[in-house]
Amino acid sequence: MKGGAVQYMPVTQSMFLIAETRDQPMHVGGLQLFLPRDCQTAEELAEEIHEKFLAATDIQSTFLKRPASPANLAGYTAWQQAHDIDFDYHVRRIILPRPGEIKNLLRYVSLNHGALLDRSRPMWELHIIEGLADGRVALYSKIHHSLADGVTALRMLQRTLTTDPDDRGGTAFWDNDLLRPRRKRPSAPKPSLLSRVTGAVGSAVEMADELIGTVPAAAKIAAAGVFDHDFVAPMQMAPDTILNVPIGSARRFAAQDWPVERLRAAARRHCITFNDVVLAMCSGALRRYLDDQDALPDDSLHVCQPVSLHTEGDSASNAITAILARLATDVADPAERLREIVASTASAKGVVRELKPLQSLALGAANVWPLAFAPVPGFVNYTPRGFNLMISTVPGPEEDLYWNGAKLDGCYPVSIPMEGLAMNITMTTVAGKANFGIIGARAQLPRLQRILDHLEISLVELEEMEPLQQGA
Amino acid sequence: MKGGAVQYMPVTQSMFLIAETRDQPMHVGGLQLFLPRDCQTAEELAEEIHEKFLAATDIQSTFLKRPASPANLAGYTAWQQAHDIDFDYHVRRIILPRPGEIKNLLRYVSLNHGALLDRSRPMWELHIIEGLADGRVALYSKIHHSLADGVTALRMLQRTLTTDPDDRGGTAFWDNDLLRPRRKRPSAPKPSLLSRVTGAVGSAVEMADELIGTVPAAAKIAAAGVFDHDFVAPMQMAPDTILNVPIGSARRFAAQDWPVERLRAAARRHCITFNDVVLAMCSGALRRYLDDQDALPDDSLHVCQPVSLHTEGDSASNAITAILARLATDVADPAERLREIVASTASAKGVVRELKPLQSLALGAANVWPLAFAPVPGFVNYTPRGFNLMISTVPGPEEDLYWNGAKLDGCYPVSIPMEGLAMNITMTTVAGKANFGIIGARAQLPRLQRILDHLEISLVELEEMEPLQQGA
Repeated sequence: MKGGAVQYMPVTQSMFLIAETRDQPMHVGGLQLFLPRDCQTAEELAEEIHEKFLAATDIQSTFLKRPASPANLAGYTAWQQAHDIDFDYHVRRIILPRPGEIKNLLRYVSLNHGALLDRSRPMWELHIIEGLADGRVALYSKIHHSLADGVTALRMLQRTLTTDPDDRGGTAFWDNDLLRPRRKRPSAPKPSLLSRVTGAVGSAVEMADELIGTVPAAAKIAAAGVFDHDFVAPMQMAPDTILNVPIGSARRFAAQDWPVERLRAAARRHCITFNDVVLAMCSGALRRYLDDQDALPDDSLHVCQPVSLHTEGDSASNAITAILARLATDVADPAERLREIVASTASAKGVVRELKPLQSLALGAANVWPLAFAPVPGFVNYTPRGFNLMISTVPGPEEDLYWNGAKLDGCYPVSIPMEGLAMNITMTTVAGKANFGIIGARAQLPRLQRILDHLEISLVELEEMEPLQQGA
Repeated sequence: MKGGAVQYMPVTQSMFLIAETRDQPMHVGGLQLFLPRDCQTAEELAEEIHEKFLAATDIQSTFLKRPASPANLAGYTAWQQAHDIDFDYHVRRIILPRPGEIKNLLRYVSLNHGALLDRSRPMWELHIIEGLADGRVALYSKIHHSLADGVTALRMLQRTLTTDPDDRGGTAFWDNDLLRPRRKRPSAPKPSLLSRVTGAVGSAVEMADELIGTVPAAAKIAAAGVFDHDFVAPMQMAPDTILNVPIGSARRFAAQDWPVERLRAAARRHCITFNDVVLAMCSGALRRYLDDQDALPDDSLHVCQPVSLHTEGDSASNAITAILARLATDVADPAERLREIVASTASAKGVVRELKPLQSLALGAANVWPLAFAPVPGFVNYTPRGFNLMISTVPGPEEDLYWNGAKLDGCYPVSIPMEGLAMNITMTTVAGKANFGIIGARAQLPRLQRILDHLEISLVELEEMEPLQQGA
């Protein structure tokens, strides 16, 4: 594999290379499950995927990019374009051990998600996984955060899918052909509820002139922190918890899906947003999980929610900001907890609403800046932090999707734990399912999979409690 | 997993933690193949191994050690003893994809050998691998070099084996029970030819008083460098080759075995040592491989051969020195090449012969010191080096060995490529087979598996050429 042209690397990308350590790999992952089509075995589907993927040798530039070498000590400042791909390395096949249960699959993902990507080649991997007793075939993909954020990665995967079960044009997600707009594709996902609230509809990268507005935006945040007691200002102290400790590289991954309609019904019942339902589920589940571990803090957890600034047009870049909210995990009563969560997110959105995209980006950077210092040993233990964990929601297409006739039957995000942020929860909605992916540092967060049961219990609580009296 | 007592870590161990980078993982590996016993399927053998291994919960202290945390910037200076093991993490099961050929197995090892071990837990992994079409079951193990060198790791594995095919006491290599000397074990391996030459029979670590002899030893080396033109003095310039470049983390692993008797017959034919036969095979193979890559240097490759200072009594420590030899890869004629190799190793042994163990250790350190600087970016490209690659030979038991009745049918070492040393060849003799394991940096050494064919060609050359006229 020889190197090609060298290309400038913006700091929004290189920061993910610089922040990466052996205990904090900075790649995002995705786990997709497919049902073989009629009269097709899982083995045949896996072979078909492998064949079609390896036939896609005209490769999108994103999947040929690698940090220019030799690395200099000051960090990576350029991308180099590889000419070809060592498919034997990047595309891996494996069969799960018996009994081929979902837990065997989640364990495989856990064990592989802690391994760093090789920087001397394009930083992505695809694992084609057979052996599930239920007859499905799984794809686990890893891509470095410097190449794509979770939203972008999800869109890359979805671009290979179609709403037409009879379409047999299935190909690899790196196929350059996918960038040509002549094929029938699923409708673009609607902007997320949050990004619609922000009104962020421009490509942040191209709007450098907006940077001038950053200082007034910061002043606005300060004002909100003073006058609105529901607003969680950046750098406000979040409690010490077992989520906020140094971590090792080993991971634990849990995933499950719920019908989107159940969450939507709960939102309608209480006249709250879909996102508030997600936060309320997470809040109840985290409260129970921490209580089980004898580690529930007296004060509420604070959550950071990344908000995508992606628009329908742009594709291959990182563009996020974030808001902070109080999860009310210190409140035992589910109704009162929900009320506090709704008040907190409404206030945070109030601040983001009036910001332009680049201003929001600055807000995001202010909220997450302690992360940059996390790899310094000892830092995590002694620094006040603004939040305890990140929870992301990523909306995808609502229709059923197919790859070469095989139906997508689950699409779980696998995100990034960090020093001081040992757990991450990301939820994507695809084809009527709300897919939760929970990734945690293995040694620090035992029995993480119990959160799945706790999420169900919390959703049932929302479904059964009296409709929320807002403003009460 | 909670931490226990803290224990001093000597520099001979911590150096492997300090020298480790994401592109240069410092763990050694082993790949063992087992034949199921009569009337047993591969699946049943794999289940049996898994069950028996997980039942071994009284764990040797070596497999509970991890670097004390938090790490300090000056390096790791202490071991911490874990109380228990997260078996779900350390013991992994997998089934190879079809067609289940040896190349599928070697690829699995290649892909996993580039991944760093987690420092927040005891630094080892065991992979139980099924799916080989030939019905064998493979065990791939990784252990950090700070815990054990290749010789020690091989002995740990062998301690679980017995010469009795009817013995059903098979257990895990971490079983504390194995350290109690009441079980029937294979005879201890004979000291290697090289270590017998050195006369190194003491435990180097305990002989600190010998350090006083180090300066005269250094003077002796200098004298040999001046008076004996066959002796390769430390730090003499070795040629620039594609083996001596910065590397990425991805690996390529090739392995094959030959009957020990074929190599012994070649040694007898030419009245040379077994080790000279190994070097001659490697020399011919490397000459062909580099020539294929259009990368054969005008000057000969220089090889570094670690020499074990292990004695029969000591077990769990690093104790090696090294000699340097000229491989004569610049010589086209096989007979002349062999003659030059024999002259070079005889001379190097001449120096080592008169050294005491700690003096030999000092010689080894002098020969390998540039490695310590390799992780500094740019260093590799600009520094003269004393050798181009390391070739190790590790003798094991000669008898057939069994685990719970399953016959050991191959035992390949998986060693460590480094910055500036992109290839490593290690050979172990076990139960009548000479098992070559060749590990290389993936991007830097394409088509590495061709060396296996070249080794065979070189051995045939040795078998067919006229007996060597020594001193001619």
